[in-house]
Amino acid sequence: MKVGIFIGSDSDFPIVEGAIHLMKKFDVKFGLEVTSAHRSPERTRTLIKKYEESGVSVFIAIAGKAAHLAGVVASHTTRPVIGVPVGGSELGGLDALLSTSQMPKGIPVACMGIGKSGASNAALLAIQILALSDLSLEEKLKANRSQMAANVEAASQKIQDKL
Amino acid sequence: MKVGIFIGSDSDFPIVEGAIHLMKKFDVKFGLEVTSAHRSPERTRTLIKKYEESGVSVFIAIAGKAAHLAGVVASHTTRPVIGVPVGGSELGGLDALLSTSQMPKGIPVACMGIGKSGASNAALLAIQILALSDLSLEEKLKANRSQMAANVEAASQKIQDKL
Amino acid sequence: MKVGIFIGSDSDFPIVEGAIHLMKKFDVKFGLEVTSAHRSPERTRTLIKKYEESGVSVFIAIAGKAAHLAGVVASHTTRPVIGVPVGGSELGGLDALLSTSQMPKGIPVACMGIGKSGASNAALLAIQILALSDLSLEEKLKANRSQMAANVEAASQKIQDKL
Amino acid sequence: MKVGIFIGSDSDFPIVEGAIHLMKKFDVKFGLEVTSAHRSPERTRTLIKKYEESGVSVFIAIAGKAAHLAGVVASHTTRPVIGVPVGGSELGGLDALLSTSQMPKGIPVACMGIGKSGASNAALLAIQILALSDLSLEEKLKANRSQMAANVEAASQKIQDKL
Amino acid sequence: MKVGIFIGSDSDFPIVEGAIHLMKKFDVKFGLEVTSAHRSPERTRTLIKKYEESGVSVFIAIAGKAAHLAGVVASHTTRPVIGVPVGGSELGGLDALLSTSQMPKGIPVACMGIGKSGASNAALLAIQILALSDLSLEEKLKANRSQMAANVEAASQKIQDKL
Amino acid sequence: MKVGIFIGSDSDFPIVEGAIHLMKKFDVKFGLEVTSAHRSPERTRTLIKKYEESGVSVFIAIAGKAAHLAGVVASHTTRPVIGVPVGGSELGGLDALLSTSQMPKGIPVACMGIGKSGASNAALLAIQILALSDLSLEEKLKANRSQMAANVEAASQKIQDKL
Amino acid sequence: MKVGIFIGSDSDFPIVEGAIHLMKKFDVKFGLEVTSAHRSPERTRTLIKKYEESGVSVFIAIAGKAAHLAGVVASHTTRPVIGVPVGGSELGGLDALLSTSQMPKGIPVACMGIGKSGASNAALLAIQILALSDLSLEEKLKANRSQMAANVEAASQKIQDKL
Amino acid sequence: MKVGIFIGSDSDFPIVEGAIHLMKKFDVKFGLEVTSAHRSPERTRTLIKKYEESGVSVFIAIAGKAAHLAGVVASHTTRPVIGVPVGGSELGGLDALLSTSQMPKGIPVACMGIGKSGASNAALLAIQILALSDLSLEEKLKANRSQMAANVEAASQKIQDKL
Repeated sequence: MKVGIFIGSDSDFPIVEGAIHLMKKFDVKFGLEVTSAHRSPERTRTLIKKYEESGVSVFIAIAGKAAHLAGVVASHTTRPVIGVPVGGSELGGLDALLSTSQMPKGIPVACMGIGKSGASNAALLAIQILALSDLSLEEKLKANRSQMAANVEAASQKIQDKL
Repeated sequence: MKVGIFIGSDSDFPIVEGAIHLMKKFDVKFGLEVTSAHRSPERTRTLIKKYEESGVSVFIAIAGKAAHLAGVVASHTTRPVIGVPVGGSELGGLDALLSTSQMPKGIPVACMGIGKSGASNAALLAIQILALSDLSLEEKLKANRSQMAANVEAASQKIQDKL
Repeated sequence: MKVGIFIGSDSDFPIVEGAIHLMKKFDVKFGLEVTSAHRSPERTRTLIKKYEESGVSVFIAIAGKAAHLAGVVASHTTRPVIGVPVGGSELGGLDALLSTSQMPKGIPVACMGIGKSGASNAALLAIQILALSDLSLEEKLKANRSQMAANVEAASQKIQDKL
Repeated sequence: MKVGIFIGSDSDFPIVEGAIHLMKKFDVKFGLEVTSAHRSPERTRTLIKKYEESGVSVFIAIAGKAAHLAGVVASHTTRPVIGVPVGGSELGGLDALLSTSQMPKGIPVACMGIGKSGASNAALLAIQILALSDLSLEEKLKANRSQMAANVEAASQKIQDKL
Repeated sequence: MKVGIFIGSDSDFPIVEGAIHLMKKFDVKFGLEVTSAHRSPERTRTLIKKYEESGVSVFIAIAGKAAHLAGVVASHTTRPVIGVPVGGSELGGLDALLSTSQMPKGIPVACMGIGKSGASNAALLAIQILALSDLSLEEKLKANRSQMAANVEAASQKIQDKL
Repeated sequence: MKVGIFIGSDSDFPIVEGAIHLMKKFDVKFGLEVTSAHRSPERTRTLIKKYEESGVSVFIAIAGKAAHLAGVVASHTTRPVIGVPVGGSELGGLDALLSTSQMPKGIPVACMGIGKSGASNAALLAIQILALSDLSLEEKLKANRSQMAANVEAASQKIQDKL
Repeated sequence: MKVGIFIGSDSDFPIVEGAIHLMKKFDVKFGLEVTSAHRSPERTRTLIKKYEESGVSVFIAIAGKAAHLAGVVASHTTRPVIGVPVGGSELGGLDALLSTSQMPKGIPVACMGIGKSGASNAALLAIQILALSDLSLEEKLKANRSQMAANVEAASQKIQDKL
Repeated sequence: MKVGIFIGSDSDFPIVEGAIHLMKKFDVKFGLEVTSAHRSPERTRTLIKKYEESGVSVFIAIAGKAAHLAGVVASHTTRPVIGVPVGGSELGGLDALLSTSQMPKGIPVACMGIGKSGASNAALLAIQILALSDLSLEEKLKANRSQMAANVEAASQKIQDKL
C-alpha cells in the first residue's frame, strides 16, 4: 500500500475515478477509504495510523466546502499529504481551495486544482514522489509526458480540418 | 467552566481580549487555551474531553487562514461550537471565513464575523445560549442592549456639534 | 414552541425541508413562518415578539441575496439567532453569506453554510442548544453522530466494490 | 429637511464629511443622525417616521460590514433610499457592497460605490433627485459638472510640466 | 416620457420585462431603447439629449460584463441615472456589479442588484423618485407595499399545509 | 501568416470559432495550433520560432485555469501577444483571467475578456494592430463598427413591437 | 505622436511614470493627457479625434474603480487601445480589472495587470506594436529582453551571498 | 543538491528566508536561484536540466501575480514541483494562488499557502518527501512536530497570566 486515498463522502467517487485509473495504469498499490474529518474523526485518525503502519508513502485527501480532511490527515502524519478541493458547492470550490491551501506554518498540504483534474494530478504527484526511489516509475512518467505531447500534436493536426 | 475558548495561536490573543472582557463583565466562568488543530491535534482532542467533563456548555474556537479549529472541535462534541475567523492573512480573512462557515451537513459551527468584532460576538452568543437557563444573564443581556441603544443616541447628539 | 424558523420567501421552502425533517426526527416543537425583513418588516417584528412570548429558545432565519432577515431578527431579541444564507443568486450565495456573517459588534448571528446543508445544520445547532438543558436530546444527538460515523464506514465498504 | 442622512456609527463620520460639504455647498437642508439597524432598531424606525413627517425627500444610509441600515430604512419608507457601503473591514467593503446592492425584488436601494467617494456621490444623487423639481439646483449641478471638466483640463495642463 | 430605459443589447430584453410591467402597472410613461456604450456611442449620446429634451426625469441603464452604459449616460446628464448590472457572464455578474457601482467621485450611478430583480427595483426606484412630486404615485407605491406584505402573509399561511 | 492562434486544448475549439470567422471575414492569413504550455512546452517554443520566422505579426493564446500559455508565448517573443482566458472552470474563469492579466513588469500580455467574446475581440485587436500598416483593413474595421451601430439601432426598432 | 496616454486623474501620475520613462528610453513620441470618461466626456471624445488626426497609432488609458476610460476610448476609435486598471481602491483594483477586461464582443481593450507594472507593460506593448513597422524598435526590444535576463542572472549571483 | 529553490525575483528573498532556515536546520542540501518564467525563460529551462543532472529530488518555485514559474518548471520535469504563491500584489496573492493551484490535468504542482508560511511549508513538504527514503529526516520531522506541540502548550501556559 503505497498511497492512501481518503474521500470525504462516497458522492465524491466520480471525482476520484481518474486518479484510480492512473494508480492502476502506473501499477501503484493504493487503498481507498471514505472517511470524514467531521462525521468520523476517530475513523480518520485510526485509518491514518493503520496506513502508516502498512508503510504508506503518500496520502491523498479529497473533500469539498470547508474541506478539513487534508489538514486533519496532515496533523496526524509526517508523510506527504496531497489535498484535492472538490467543487460543486455554491461557491464553485473556492471555499475548498482556500481551506486546503492556506495551511498554517508547520503543517504543509500539497494543494491541487479543484475537482477531477486536481484528483488526477494528485495521483500523478504521488507517483512522482514514489518515482524518486523507483526508476521504473520515472520511466513511465516520462513516457506519459511524451504521450501527452504527442496527443497535443495529434489534436492540432485533426483541428486543421475544421478550418 | 461554562465556556471553553480555544485560540489557534498566542498571536491571536489581541483578537480575543474583547471576548474575555465580556465574559468577565457578564460574570461567566470560562477557560482559555492555546491549541492548534494542526500543530497540537492530540492536545485539542484531550482539551475538548476535559472541558466536556468539567461541564462546559459552549465552545468558542478562534483561528485564521485554513481555520480548521472550530470544525475539529465540532467533530468531537455535540455541545454548540462557535467559530471566529481571524483576518490579517493575505486574503483578509476570506479564507478563514469560508473554512469556518461552509461546514458539511451534520456538524454545525456557528460562524461569526471576521476578527475582533466576531470574537466579541462569539462571547455574546455564548452568553445568549447560557441565558436560556439563567434569568440573571438574560436581564444583563437586555440591559446591555439598552446601553448600546443609548450609546448610539448619545453619539448622535455629540455629532451634531460637528455640523 | 422551542424553535422559530423564518424564511424570507416561500420559494425558500426546499432549502428548509431537511431542517424540518430534523426537527420532527428529534421531536422538537417548532413554528415556521414566511416573513421578509424588507417586504413585511412589521410582521417580522410582531412575529419575533409573539414567538418570544410563547417561550421560543432559538430563532432560525433563512434568506438570500442581501439577506437581512437574520440580522433584523437579532436586532429585536436576545435569544440566539441562527442565520442560513441561501444560494442560487448570480453570486452563488457569497452575498448572503457575507450579509449574514459580518454582523457588527454587539449583535451576533450564528452563520451557517450556504443552502440546504446550512439549513440542516441550523436545525442541529438549535437542537444542540436545547440539549444543554434536555438530556434526552443530548443522547439523541450522540446517537445521531454515531449513526453518521457508521454511515461513513458503510459507504467506505460499499465503494470497495467499484475498485 | 430635504435629506436625512443616517450613519451606522459615529466612527463613520469621516466617510460622510464630503457629503455634508456638498449639502452645504448646494444649500440643501439635511439632518444627520447616528443610528444602527442592529443596535438601535427602534430609534431607526422612529427616526424614519419623524423624517417622513418633516417632509424628507431622500434618505442616505451609510454602513459597513453586513450593512443592513439602507435596507432597513428602505423597508419602512417609499421615499428613495441611497445606500453607501463603508469599506475598511477585513474584506475591504465587498461585504457592505453586496449587502447594500443585492436587495430583493420590491424594495430598491440605490447603492453607491464604497467609502468617501460613494458618500459624496450619494449627496450628489440626492441633489439630482431634488433638482427634478428645483431649477436652481439643476443649474448648480450643471455648473458643478462644468467645473469638474475644467478642473480635469487644468490638471492636464499642470501635468505637462512633469514630462 | 418620464423614464428612459436603455438596454445594452436586445438579448437583455428578458431582464427588463418585469420593469416594463411595473411601468405600465404604475401608468408611468417610458421609452425603451437598445443602445450600447461601446458599439453605438454616438447613438447613446444623441438619445440622452433627445430624452432630456422630451423632459425625461430618470434614466435606467441595463448592461452586463464591463457594463459602462450607466456610467456613460451619467457622464452626459445631471438627471438621476439608475444602473442595473446584468448577470449571466462567466463571473456571474460580479464584473457588471463592480463596473456599475464603483463610480468615481462626482458622477453618481444608483446601482441596483444583479439581473431581473435589480431591473424591477430600478423601475420602482424611478417611480419613487417621480412620486416625490406626484401624490397618486406615492399612494400606489404604498398600496404596492401593503400588497407585498399581504402576499408574504398569504404565502406563510399556505406553507403551513406542507408541515 | 499574419496571426498565430494557439489554443491550449482542442476542447477550446468552440471558443475560437468566432475569432476564426473574423479572420476569414477580414481576409487575414492566420495559423491555428493546439499547443499546451504545460503538456507540450517544447512544441510551444518551436512553434513560436516557426511563426516568427514566417513573419507573424501577432500571437493569440487561448487557455483556461492556470492559463500560462499567453505568458509563455510572451516570454519567447517581442511580437504582441494577446491572451484569452477560457471560462468554464469551477471558478468561472476568474483563475484564467488573473493568470493572463497579472503579468510581471517587462513581459506584457494583452488580456481580453473571458471566453467567446474575448476570443472574437482578440481577433479584432489583432486586425486593429495589422490595420496600422494596412489601410484596407482600417476601412473594413470602420465599416464593421458602422455595421455594429446599425445593428444596435435595428435591434432597438424591433424591440418596440414587444412593448 | 505615436502613443496617446490618457489618465483619469492627475493622482494617477505616479502610476504612469514608469511608462513615461520607457517611452523616453525607446525614443517614442507620446502625448499625456488627464481626461476622465465621466467628468470630462466631451474632452475625452475631442482628444481622441485630435490624436487620431495627428496620426497616433496606439492609445493607453489608465483609470481606477469603475474604470470606463479605456472602454470609452475604444468605442470612439479603431486604433488599438490598451487599458491599465489602477489599484488602491477598497477592492484592490479588482473592480478596475474587471471593468477594463470584460469588454463586450466587438470593442476590444488590451487589458494589462493592475497598477505600475501594468502601466509599464502598456508602454512596452505599445512599443511592440510600433516595432512591427520599425526595425530599430524591434532591436531595442530584444536588447531590453536580454538586459532583463542578464539582470535576473546578476540578482541570482548577488543573492548567493545571503545564504 | 536535494532541493532546487527558484524565486522569480530577488525581492522575493524575504519570503524564502524561513524556508532556507528550515533547509539548514534539517541539514538538507539545496540550491537557490533567481530565475523568471517570463524574463529569463532560457535560464529557467537550463537551470531545471542542470539541477536534474545534479540529482535534485524536489523543486520549489516561488512567484507572485500571474505566477507561472512553478507551472513552467513542472512542464520541464517529472520531479515533484512545489509552488509558493507570493502575496503583496493588489489582489493580495489571490492571483498567484489561482495561477499556481489550478494546473491542467497531467502536470501537477503542489500548491502551498500564500507567502512566508507557504514558503516554510514548501521546505517542510520537500523534507517530508526526502524523508521517505531517509530515516534520520523522518525522525527530525517527528521531533519537529513534538516541538511544535510543546510550543503550543507553553504558549497556552503563558497566556493564562494575561487573564
